[in-house]
Amino acid sequence: MSNIIDGKSISNQIILSLNDDINKYSHYGKPSLAVVQVGNKLESSVYIKKKCEACSELGFYSEVHKLGEDATDDTVINLINKLNMNKRMNGILVQLPLPKHLNEAKILNHIAYDKDVDGFHAQNMGELAMKYREPAFIPCTPQGCLKLLEYENIKIRGAHVVVIGNSNIVGLPMSLLLLKEGATVTVCHIDTKDLKLHTKQADIIITACGQPEMIKKEWVKPGVVIIDVGTNFIPDSTKKSGRKLVGDVDFNDVKDIAYKISPVPGGVGPLTVAMLLLNTFKAFKIQNGFN
Amino acid sequence: MSNIIDGKSISNQIILSLNDDINKYSHYGKPSLAVVQVGNKLESSVYIKKKCEACSELGFYSEVHKLGEDATDDTVINLINKLNMNKRMNGILVQLPLPKHLNEAKILNHIAYDKDVDGFHAQNMGELAMKYREPAFIPCTPQGCLKLLEYENIKIRGAHVVVIGNSNIVGLPMSLLLLKEGATVTVCHIDTKDLKLHTKQADIIITACGQPEMIKKEWVKPGVVIIDVGTNFIPDSTKKSGRKLVGDVDFNDVKDIAYKISPVPGGVGPLTVAMLLLNTFKAFKIQNGFN
Repeated sequence: MSNIIDGKSISNQIILSLNDDINKYSHYGKPSLAVVQVGNKLESSVYIKKKCEACSELGFYSEVHKLGEDATDDTVINLINKLNMNKRMNGILVQLPLPKHLNEAKILNHIAYDKDVDGFHAQNMGELAMKYREPAFIPCTPQGCLKLLEYENIKIRGAHVVVIGNSNIVGLPMSLLLLKEGATVTVCHIDTKDLKLHTKQADIIITACGQPEMIKKEWVKPGVVIIDVGTNFIPDSTKKSGRKLVGDVDFNDVKDIAYKISPVPGGVGPLTVAMLLLNTFKAFKIQNGFN
Repeated sequence: MSNIIDGKSISNQIILSLNDDINKYSHYGKPSLAVVQVGNKLESSVYIKKKCEACSELGFYSEVHKLGEDATDDTVINLINKLNMNKRMNGILVQLPLPKHLNEAKILNHIAYDKDVDGFHAQNMGELAMKYREPAFIPCTPQGCLKLLEYENIKIRGAHVVVIGNSNIVGLPMSLLLLKEGATVTVCHIDTKDLKLHTKQADIIITACGQPEMIKKEWVKPGVVIIDVGTNFIPDSTKKSGRKLVGDVDFNDVKDIAYKISPVPGGVGPLTVAMLLLNTFKAFKIQNGFN
């Protein structure tokens, strides 16, 4: 059996099972997602397109609200308020990053708690952090990483997990989620002094630090499980685009000593979109009184 | 110079400086704190008495609202709603633990975000967790631990801190606060397999796990800094009460190899009350438009 985690296959299984669920609720209408994009960042447009296509494949309705690069906090918040009030819209997602002049925290906290399918509202994050509490939504990428571990039957309770990166979008909610699942968690980041010392002790490594192929064989212990959230481009003259996508892990160097390892691409990526669909469906159920 | 951290002295310094601040705002009235107590737990009554006495010493107004052991969620929430609306009341604190039949999460989330001087509202916890965001209030005990480290000039950024315990009240917000300050944080708890392996590597240990005198000399590396949040009672026939208060650390065993160590009692304890006063004063300023 291969030790390479097949994110595409796991994502397909999740979507198939979600599809069964959706059919049970089809007489309540279509789950729907509103995406807010400020500016014209190419990468954001690509991500949004992927999300909307995935919605469409499952029969969800989605719409994109584009605002100019120079939109003010008030313009964005007014739009969010309208979407909050709009009963036909179940989920709201503000594509990040926002242009630097905008107040991200203030904007994200304006999304209605029960439409916040990215889970970045402070109240969702607080409920995620605290024991005996449940957020309405768990951020998509960390939720996807957890699904990979579940599908691969990796025991989390009692495991020592080293999380690399503590961004609001991945590393932080990932660490909170793992703690809730009973892992002993070490959070490493830009200020960590001897990263290798920590990674070498980990039963599980989840990395989201944006350092292309940083993690080598000597950095990990044999039998480690690795989930690689990195999406980095490095020059590659053999490709038409002149570049290739790699993770934070030197995959070829590490793969033979890992018990399980997720590749880039084809690992976490497909799960992130699947989790957005799960969250949007959850929003739909909440707003129809089923959750 | 002694390596024993004098919590009482640090607390006094903080309160003195707070007192100067308060005098500048005295023409806006007295900062005020409402404490909600459900049931008659003796320990809770003792803590509440201490808090109110500390308020009184600084010229703050405080009042205690006692509800019966059998109060319902609605009764408690109605009281909180009234206190939220009451403009004369700056801070609201629900004494924990609540009787088991009550929904703690729901009750705490009803406290107005800007009166939540314990910082246990999910939104406060979420803002504490996330980078580039600031909660209105930081929970008192972890905030107190951080003050001890600050007053002792312990560098946090880049330090490896092992936090033992992940309660909503101490361990979790402590870990979040340390991450925000740039520490590499390992969170250990009841499911951690080899606790000693982790504590031995720590530059700083902050323990709040309620295991009397668990941490011995062999568990730590020489030069470690230890903040002991444990408050455990063990039998002691030489005391009139028949028991004595000890921390999670075997103080006499460990003290000579630590660079700094906080004792129990007289370490973190005095800081917790001082931080409640700081938070109440902050609430007073927020509600008078100064924050």
